[in-house]
Amino acid sequence: MKVQNFRNVRGLTAAPGVLMHVVAGPAEGAPNFVMRLFEIQPGSATPHHSHPWEHEIFVVSGKGTLKSGDRQTPLREGDAAMVLPDELHSFANAGRETLRVICVVPLVDGKMPGMPVAD
Amino acid sequence: MKVQNFRNVRGLTAAPGVLMHVVAGPAEGAPNFVMRLFEIQPGSATPHHSHPWEHEIFVVSGKGTLKSGDRQTPLREGDAAMVLPDELHSFANAGRETLRVICVVPLVDGKMPGMPVAD
Repeated sequence: MKVQNFRNVRGLTAAPGVLMHVVAGPAEGAPNFVMRLFEIQPGSATPHHSHPWEHEIFVVSGKGTLKSGDRQTPLREGDAAMVLPDELHSFANAGRETLRVICVVPLVDGKMPGMPVAD
Repeated sequence: MKVQNFRNVRGLTAAPGVLMHVVAGPAEGAPNFVMRLFEIQPGSATPHHSHPWEHEIFVVSGKGTLKSGDRQTPLREGDAAMVLPDELHSFANAGRETLRVICVVPLVDGKMPGMPVAD
């Protein structure tokens, strides 16, 4: 068992204005999936991209937009999103405060799958 | 892709004073794991139990205690917890407001594994 606050886990730059805190993953002995806390600054977004693995997401605080192809869905605190494998998607901050989202991905070959830096 | 607020997902009683909202799971096409939002009322707790699958947890709001065997660890907003397979554990609300935690479990044979009602 391990408990740690995301603020004590060093954030990795996933995109400009986007920090990723890996809060439960291989370093904690995770057997199947990895939990990350993303902090997206106002005006920033993750790259619009797709990959063969899914996302399960929960909005902790802030306001955002989930884009999937040409479709845009607003996001607010308490929203959960299921992004299926190979769905084109990106998350943007649409508010004035930091957008914080939990994003869980499966382990692939025992590792957290990579995130492209650009589209 | 599906987006839904946990408040619009019917809560299932997991224990007295404990509601479970399944926000991303088989009904949403989840291939590997299930995300749930638990609401634990003041004075309530999940059963002290173990099972062969892990939990990855994130505290959205409230104050709590994670018990593992005889060890008790305080929980606050922003804490993430990794509970490994077969670890004895329970979550209790140690505050005056609802304790809300995200809890992710793997799918077992394509289904969300069950939660015992009692210890």
